[in-house]
Amino acid sequence: MINQDLVAFGLHLKHLRQEKGLSQEQLGLIAELDRTYISGIERGVRNVSLANIFKIAKALDVESAELFSPKQ
Amino acid sequence: MINQDLVAFGLHLKHLRQEKGLSQEQLGLIAELDRTYISGIERGVRNVSLANIFKIAKALDVESAELFSPKQ
Repeated sequence: MINQDLVAFGLHLKHLRQEKGLSQEQLGLIAELDRTYISGIERGVRNVSLANIFKIAKALDVESAELFSPKQ
Repeated sequence: MINQDLVAFGLHLKHLRQEKGLSQEQLGLIAELDRTYISGIERGVRNVSLANIFKIAKALDVESAELFSPKQ
């Protein structure tokens, strides 16, 4: 079942990651998460947990709220 | 193990919920989540998933980013 909120979150994350010039593997290394997990989040198929949202925000050096696009 | 990010998220959620004049039970009913789950999130002991973060934001009629306090 496709969750459009997760898909939108994933696309926004991908955008932020690319803006920082990081590969999925690099982001995974910094956030201590597997590259395939990052990939799954970006495709909207992984229902990421709050603790990992904070890890990703820190790895990207953004506030956690910034991971959510304004329209969400 | 206490995760300070989850604790801060929970306190902020509690504040938003009370601002809307909702009990944990009422928020749970609107978001289709159990009251004990809402309670656990507010105490920082439940590592809520992204899909449920969106459900809670919709139930509170706020943008998902607003669930994250500015300093997080």
